[in-house]
Amino acid sequence: MTNRETTETADLTVFEKLESNVQSYARSFPVIFERAEGAYLYDQEGRRYLDFLAGAGSLNYGHNNSILKEKLVNYIECNGITHSLDLHTKAKEQFLDALNKVIFTPRDMEYVVQFTGPTGTNAVEAALKLARNVKARHNVLSFTNGFHGVSIGAMAATGNSHHRDAAGMPLSGVMSMPYDGYLGPDINTTEYISKVLSDPSSGVDHPAAAIVETVQGEGGLNAASYEWLQNLEHICRAHDMLLIVDDIQAGCGRTGTFFSFDEAGISPDIVTLSKSLSGYGLPFAVVLVKPEYDQWNPGEHNGTFRGNNHAFVTGATSLLSYWRDDAFAKEVQRKGTSLRNRLAQIAGRHAEVATAKGRGMMRGIDFASGELAGAIAHRAFALGLVIETSGSESQVLKCLPPLTISDRDLEAGFDIIERATDEVLADRSTRAARTAA
Amino acid sequence: MTNRETTETADLTVFEKLESNVQSYARSFPVIFERAEGAYLYDQEGRRYLDFLAGAGSLNYGHNNSILKEKLVNYIECNGITHSLDLHTKAKEQFLDALNKVIFTPRDMEYVVQFTGPTGTNAVEAALKLARNVKARHNVLSFTNGFHGVSIGAMAATGNSHHRDAAGMPLSGVMSMPYDGYLGPDINTTEYISKVLSDPSSGVDHPAAAIVETVQGEGGLNAASYEWLQNLEHICRAHDMLLIVDDIQAGCGRTGTFFSFDEAGISPDIVTLSKSLSGYGLPFAVVLVKPEYDQWNPGEHNGTFRGNNHAFVTGATSLLSYWRDDAFAKEVQRKGTSLRNRLAQIAGRHAEVATAKGRGMMRGIDFASGELAGAIAHRAFALGLVIETSGSESQVLKCLPPLTISDRDLEAGFDIIERATDEVLADRSTRAARTAA
Amino acid sequence: MTNRETTETADLTVFEKLESNVQSYARSFPVIFERAEGAYLYDQEGRRYLDFLAGAGSLNYGHNNSILKEKLVNYIECNGITHSLDLHTKAKEQFLDALNKVIFTPRDMEYVVQFTGPTGTNAVEAALKLARNVKARHNVLSFTNGFHGVSIGAMAATGNSHHRDAAGMPLSGVMSMPYDGYLGPDINTTEYISKVLSDPSSGVDHPAAAIVETVQGEGGLNAASYEWLQNLEHICRAHDMLLIVDDIQAGCGRTGTFFSFDEAGISPDIVTLSKSLSGYGLPFAVVLVKPEYDQWNPGEHNGTFRGNNHAFVTGATSLLSYWRDDAFAKEVQRKGTSLRNRLAQIAGRHAEVATAKGRGMMRGIDFASGELAGAIAHRAFALGLVIETSGSESQVLKCLPPLTISDRDLEAGFDIIERATDEVLADRSTRAARTAA
Amino acid sequence: MTNRETTETADLTVFEKLESNVQSYARSFPVIFERAEGAYLYDQEGRRYLDFLAGAGSLNYGHNNSILKEKLVNYIECNGITHSLDLHTKAKEQFLDALNKVIFTPRDMEYVVQFTGPTGTNAVEAALKLARNVKARHNVLSFTNGFHGVSIGAMAATGNSHHRDAAGMPLSGVMSMPYDGYLGPDINTTEYISKVLSDPSSGVDHPAAAIVETVQGEGGLNAASYEWLQNLEHICRAHDMLLIVDDIQAGCGRTGTFFSFDEAGISPDIVTLSKSLSGYGLPFAVVLVKPEYDQWNPGEHNGTFRGNNHAFVTGATSLLSYWRDDAFAKEVQRKGTSLRNRLAQIAGRHAEVATAKGRGMMRGIDFASGELAGAIAHRAFALGLVIETSGSESQVLKCLPPLTISDRDLEAGFDIIERATDEVLADRSTRAARTAA
Repeated sequence: MTNRETTETADLTVFEKLESNVQSYARSFPVIFERAEGAYLYDQEGRRYLDFLAGAGSLNYGHNNSILKEKLVNYIECNGITHSLDLHTKAKEQFLDALNKVIFTPRDMEYVVQFTGPTGTNAVEAALKLARNVKARHNVLSFTNGFHGVSIGAMAATGNSHHRDAAGMPLSGVMSMPYDGYLGPDINTTEYISKVLSDPSSGVDHPAAAIVETVQGEGGLNAASYEWLQNLEHICRAHDMLLIVDDIQAGCGRTGTFFSFDEAGISPDIVTLSKSLSGYGLPFAVVLVKPEYDQWNPGEHNGTFRGNNHAFVTGATSLLSYWRDDAFAKEVQRKGTSLRNRLAQIAGRHAEVATAKGRGMMRGIDFASGELAGAIAHRAFALGLVIETSGSESQVLKCLPPLTISDRDLEAGFDIIERATDEVLADRSTRAARTAA
Repeated sequence: MTNRETTETADLTVFEKLESNVQSYARSFPVIFERAEGAYLYDQEGRRYLDFLAGAGSLNYGHNNSILKEKLVNYIECNGITHSLDLHTKAKEQFLDALNKVIFTPRDMEYVVQFTGPTGTNAVEAALKLARNVKARHNVLSFTNGFHGVSIGAMAATGNSHHRDAAGMPLSGVMSMPYDGYLGPDINTTEYISKVLSDPSSGVDHPAAAIVETVQGEGGLNAASYEWLQNLEHICRAHDMLLIVDDIQAGCGRTGTFFSFDEAGISPDIVTLSKSLSGYGLPFAVVLVKPEYDQWNPGEHNGTFRGNNHAFVTGATSLLSYWRDDAFAKEVQRKGTSLRNRLAQIAGRHAEVATAKGRGMMRGIDFASGELAGAIAHRAFALGLVIETSGSESQVLKCLPPLTISDRDLEAGFDIIERATDEVLADRSTRAARTAA
Repeated sequence: MTNRETTETADLTVFEKLESNVQSYARSFPVIFERAEGAYLYDQEGRRYLDFLAGAGSLNYGHNNSILKEKLVNYIECNGITHSLDLHTKAKEQFLDALNKVIFTPRDMEYVVQFTGPTGTNAVEAALKLARNVKARHNVLSFTNGFHGVSIGAMAATGNSHHRDAAGMPLSGVMSMPYDGYLGPDINTTEYISKVLSDPSSGVDHPAAAIVETVQGEGGLNAASYEWLQNLEHICRAHDMLLIVDDIQAGCGRTGTFFSFDEAGISPDIVTLSKSLSGYGLPFAVVLVKPEYDQWNPGEHNGTFRGNNHAFVTGATSLLSYWRDDAFAKEVQRKGTSLRNRLAQIAGRHAEVATAKGRGMMRGIDFASGELAGAIAHRAFALGLVIETSGSESQVLKCLPPLTISDRDLEAGFDIIERATDEVLADRSTRAARTAA
Repeated sequence: MTNRETTETADLTVFEKLESNVQSYARSFPVIFERAEGAYLYDQEGRRYLDFLAGAGSLNYGHNNSILKEKLVNYIECNGITHSLDLHTKAKEQFLDALNKVIFTPRDMEYVVQFTGPTGTNAVEAALKLARNVKARHNVLSFTNGFHGVSIGAMAATGNSHHRDAAGMPLSGVMSMPYDGYLGPDINTTEYISKVLSDPSSGVDHPAAAIVETVQGEGGLNAASYEWLQNLEHICRAHDMLLIVDDIQAGCGRTGTFFSFDEAGISPDIVTLSKSLSGYGLPFAVVLVKPEYDQWNPGEHNGTFRGNNHAFVTGATSLLSYWRDDAFAKEVQRKGTSLRNRLAQIAGRHAEVATAKGRGMMRGIDFASGELAGAIAHRAFALGLVIETSGSESQVLKCLPPLTISDRDLEAGFDIIERATDEVLADRSTRAARTAA
C-alpha cells in the first residue's frame, strides 16, 4: 500500500470554487480519482485504493469490468444508438430479451418493464404513482430508516430527516411504519401494521401500497427476516394493497441472489431496480410491474434519458455473463459468508461497542456512534480503503465491496477494517485513561 | 431515400410482451433503430431516417458526434472512472474547468454547480427545494404550458394534465401563472402576476421563486419575449423571489446562444441544465446556483448517478469544441433563420390552419389540431423524417434538428415537411370536397 | 349624541389579563358593551352607539329584535329543547317548514338542508367536502379577495394573507382566480378562467367546484355583475363543476333580496348561509344542496352544536316575519338606494381618494388607504358610530346597518360618516399644507 | 314509563323531504322531541325519555337547567348584548372573571383565553394553527381512535375513517400514534413514540405538538392512565413540542374534576374546551393558552360567532354555581363510582362479550360488536332511554348521563341498560340455539 501521508496535498481549488456545498462523499476522501479497475480506484497521483464503497452498490461487477467494457467500446465504435428516448432500439431489445431469459423465466416471474429516467428516485416516483393510480388511494406505507431517494415523491417515503428537512415543503402521501426489529427483538412490528390497517379509527388512511427494502442500505444495513417480509406481503394481500420492493441497492446480486427476495417467499407486485443494473455504473433504472397492474397510459410518466442504450448494452451483457447459471450467485454467497464471519470476529473483539449486521455482501458493523464509525472509516482511508458509513446516525461502517472482488482483496479489506478499528478504539482507550488519570 | 413500404414489418414481439404500456414515442415510429450518426438514424434493416427529434433536444451535436466519441472511447479504454457518486474525479474537474472558462467567465457569470441525479426532473427537484429553503416559503410560480418533469415535486410545476392526472395524489406547492401571450397579444400577463403578488388578499401565497422556460419546448414552442422575461425578473426582485430558468431544453445552444437567456437581459438565480449538456446524449443534469443561494448542507440532496463521468468527459469536450468562440453560435443562428424562413413559408401557404413558432433552432408549425399535426408527422416518417409534435393538444409539429446538421440535410428535412404538409392537407381537401358533394 | 371624551376610561383589566392577543375588533372600540336594541349598542356606562357593523352582517334584523325575542324567551321558559345534536325537534321542523314555504317554494327552488356546526366556516367546510366527493376531484376554484373562513379547509379558499399566513402549514386544494373587475373594467376575468379550464396544459387541475361570494364583504365590498355570475355558472356547467355560492354575509336580505343571487339568473348547486340566518345573532349555519348532490352518508360530517334550537326558533320567526311577501325586501332596496346615493355623494366630494362601492345595504367607500379609512372609522366612533373597514388593505369603510334601521337613524349614521370623512380629510390637508410650508 | 309501541308513528315528512342525508342520530330515535328538563327529553306527543346521551356531553348540568335558565331569560329580557364578535361585553368580562376565579386561580393555572367560533372543531383548528406557528413546524401527533372534529384541519387529527374518507382530499400535517393500551396491556406505547421522535431516520417529522384526549369519548371510552399522560408530557418537553389536551368532551366535570387532567399531574400548553362549557347546551368554545405561547396577531384567527353572549352568561353562571368548591365534583365522583360498579356488574354477567370502560361519568360497555351494541341501544330506547354507541365499530354502549342526574334516575337508567342487555343477549342465545338445532 502506498504511503498515505501525501494524500492531503491534492489541489481541490476547482471543486472548492465551483462545486455546490451539497457535495458530500468527497469530503471524506479529499483526493482526485482518475482511473479505476475491478476493486481498485486510483487517484491522479497514481495511488491506489481498495473500494468497499463501490458506487454505493452501483459497481457490483467492479470498476470498468473488462467483459462489459469491451462490449461497450465496440458498441460505441459501431455508432450504436446512444440516446433513444423510448424508441425501439436493438440494444433495448437485447436487454429485455436477456432480462426475460436469464432472470424472469427461470424464476417463473411475469413482469413488464418500465424504463424510467435512469436514477433510482425516478423509478421510485414511477412505482408510487402507478400504485396510487391502480388502487385509487393516495396513502403509501414506508418504513423507519428506509431510503428511496430525494425527489419530493420518493422522499416522502425516505425516513432520514437530514434529507426530509431539506424538502422545503411538507412531504405527504406516505406514512412511516416500524421496520422489522425496530421495536426490539420481541415485538413483531407487522402486528402493529396489521392492527392500524384493520382498525377503521386508527387515523391511518387505507394505503395503496407498502414500499420496502429487504435490507436497508442507507438505513444502516437492517435486514428484514423472510418471515417478516412474508407477514408484510400477507398484510398487503389482506388489505388490497400492492407490495413494492425497492431493490435498488439490495438487488442485482448484492445479497447473494439476483433479487434480494429470491428466497424470501414473496412475490412483489412492483420492483424497482437501478444502481448495478447496468453493471458498469451507468445511469439506469427500471420498474418491474406485474402485467395486471401495468395501467399506464402511453407517455404518462416520461423522461429524456429513459433510453440510455450504453446501459442497455452493459446491462444485457452483465446479465448474460453473470446470471445464466447459479455459479456467480454461489460465489457471492460464499464471499458473503466470509464477510459475515470476519465482521463478526472484528465486532466480537469490541462487543461493547460493535455489532455486525447485514446480509450477503451487504454488511457492516454498527458502532453505535456516528463519530466513532466515521473515525474508523477515516483511518481506513488513510490505510488505503474507501469505505463509508450509513444509518440514521451514520453509526454503521458499511462494506459494499464489488461482488467480483478476489478473495485476496477481500481479505486485504478486512485487514484494514480490523486494523483501523483496533487503532481507533485503542487510541480512545488511551485517551480515556489519560483523561481519567 | 429508401422505400418506406416495408417499414411496418419490424418484429416488435419482445417490446410488446415485455415493455410497459407507458412507452410512447415508439408508437409513432414502429421500427427498431440500431445505429445513428450525425443527423441520421438507421434501423436494423439499414434504412436511414433524418432526425428532427434529436432526442427531444438531447442531441444538439448530432448522434455519436465523432469528436466526442473519440474522447469517450479513449477515456473508457484507459479505465477512466465511470461512476463516482460525488467524489472528486479528474473528469469532473475538467468539466467544471471547461464550464467555467468557456461559459461562465466570458459572460461574467458567477455560479456554483450542483451535480444532481442525471435527469432534468432531478435538477428541477433540487432547484425547487433549494429555492424553498432559501426563502423559507413553500409556494412557487410556474407557467401555463410549462414542462419541468414528472417526479412529484417537478410535476407540480408541469402544466400538462396528461402527466398531472397520473400523479395519484394532489400536486401542491406550485401555482400556475399565464405565460407570455397566454391571454392574447394585447394582455401583458406579467401585470396579472404583479397584481396578485402585490395584493395581500389575492389568495396567492408569497412565492419563494418563479420557474420558467424562455421557450416552452413541450408546451408548443411558445417563446417568451425578452421584455416579458425582464418584467418577470423585475417582479422576482420586487417580491424577494428567486428566478429559476429551466434551460433544459432551450439551453446548450438550441436557441442560438449557449443559455437561451444570454441576450434576454436577465440574470437568473438558479439555472437547470440537462439534455444536451453531455453533448452525446448521456444522462447528465446540473443546477447552477448563484453562490449566495448555495445554502445546501452537505448531502442534503443526493443521488447515486450524480457522478456520471462519461458525461463529464463528453460534456467538457463539447464545451471546448463548440463554445470557445462564437463561431458555432453564429452557425446555429444562421440555420435558425433558415428554419424560421422555411417554416414561415410552409405555414404561409396554409395560413388558415398553420402558424410558425419558436426561436433559434427550436421551431415548429402550429396546426391548431393535434390530429392534423400528427398526420403530418406520420406522413413525414413515411418519407424518412423522424419528427414529433408538442403542445397542449400535440398540435405543433416540432423541429429540433441537431444544431450540427448540414445545410443540405436541413433542406432535405424542410422538403419532407413541406411535402408531408401539402399531401396531408390536399388529401383532406379532397375528402372534404367529396363529403360535401 | 353623548360626549365621547370619557370613552377611553373603561376598565379593561380583565380582558387585558385574560384574553388572547388574537382579539381584534375590540381594539377599535375600547369600551365594554352591555345592552343593545335595534340599531343601537349601549356601553356599561350607558352611552349609546349607532351600529353600522351589526355583527359583521349577523344582525340584519337589529339587536334583540322584539318579535324574535318574545318567541325566544317564551320557548326557553317552556323548556323547549335547547341542544339536540341532529335529533328531530319541533323547533327544527318548524324552521325547515318556514324555509320551505317562505323561501324555497316561491322561488321554485329545490334544496335539502344540511345543518352543520353553527359557524360559517363549518358550513363552507361541509360544502367543499361535499363538492369534492360528488365530483371525485380535489381542486376547487376560489376568487381573489374572497373570504370563506379560517379553518384549514375553508381558509384555503380565503384570499387574505393575514389569515393564510397563520395556517402554520400550506393550504391546498384550492386555486385562486380573478374576481369580477380584478384586472380592471376592460378585462372579463371569466375569459381567463374559461381559458385555463379548457387548456389541458394550463397547470390548473380540473376543479370539482367554484366557490364565490356575489358581493365580497370582507374583501372590500366588490360586487360581481350578474353577467359575470352567469358566465361563471356557464363555465361550471361546461366543465362539469358545481357552483357554490357562499351567501353567508350577502344573503338573508343584505343585498335587497333574500338570497343575494335571487335576481342574478343563476342556480347554485350548493349555498351556504349563516350570520343573519337565526335573525337574532345566534350561531347558526346551513348548507343548501340540490337533492341530486346530497351524497352524504349518515354522520359523515357532524358537529356537536348543529342542533342549536334557539336559533331554529328565531330563524323560523325571522323568515315568517320578514319574508312572507316582498314588503321587507322592497324596504331594504329603498334604504339601499339611500345608502348608495349618500355614499356616492360623500365619496364624490373627495373623488380624488374616495369611491363608493357595494350593493343593497352592503356598501362602503373605498379610500384607497387602510390608514385613512381607519382614521375615519376611528373618528366616527368618537362621534357615536360603530363602523369597521374591510378590503385587502382595510381601505374600505364598510356600512352594514341593520336592515330594519329607521330612516332617521340611517341618516344619522350618514351624517356621522360625512362629518368624520370631512374632518379627517380636512385635518390631513391642513397638515399637508403645513408640512409643505 | 310510557308505552313505546306508538313511538314509530311520528310524522317525519318534513325531515325526510328537506333534511340532508347526512343527518345521523335521528335515525336511531325516530321521534320529534319538543321539550326537555334535567335528565329528561319529551317528544311532541308527551312521551318522556331518560337521556343518557346528554347532547354527546354538552348537557352536563341537564337540559334547561333552571339556575342557568333564569339568568339567561333575565339577560335576554334586559336586552343584554346577544352577538358581539370579539367586542368587549359585560357578559364576556363576567365569564372571564368567573373562569379565572373559580377555575384558574384555585389550580394555580395561568392561561389566556381565546374565543373561537363556538364549536369544538373551530377550537381545535385554532389550537393546531397556534402550535404550528409557535414551533414553526407543520407536523402534529394525534392518536389512534382520537376525535377532534371534521373540518379539514381538525379532521387530519381525527382517526375515524368514516369521517376521514369524506374529506374529498388527502388530510395532511398530522401523524397518528398508538394511544394508551392500543397495542395491548403489555406495551407502553409512549416508548414507540419516544423512539420515532428520537430516531432522525424514522420518517416522522419533528412535530410542533401532540393533541390528545385523556378519555376518548367518540373513540370508545378509552381512558389513558395518568402515567401514560405524564410520559407523553415528558416526551413533549424532551422534544420541544407543545402538549394540547382536547378536553371538549372529557372536560367541564365529566370525569369527576373540572379538567379531565386535574389529577393527572400534567400541565398542557394548550387546552380546548367546548360542549358543556356554556352549561346550557349553547354553542361555545375556547382555547386556553399558556401566555408565553399566545403568539397570535390580532384577528389572525377569527369567526363571526365568537361572541355568543348567551353562552357567556350561562357559562359564567355554571362555573359560579357548580365549581366554587369541590362539592359538585365529589358528587360527580360518587355517581361515577355507581356508574362504574353497575356497568361492571352488567358487563360481568356477560363477560364473554362485554367489558366495562371509561372514567368518571363517562363510561360504557364494550360489546365487541357494533351490531350488538346497537341492538341494545335500540332496545333501551324502546324502554325509554336515549343512549348511543361509540368506538371505531360503534361497539361501545356509551353512558353520558347529565352530571346533575338524581340517584333515582341514574338507577332507572341502569335498570334499562341491564334489561336491554339481558333481553338482547337472551334473544340471541335463543336464536343461536334454534339455529344450532
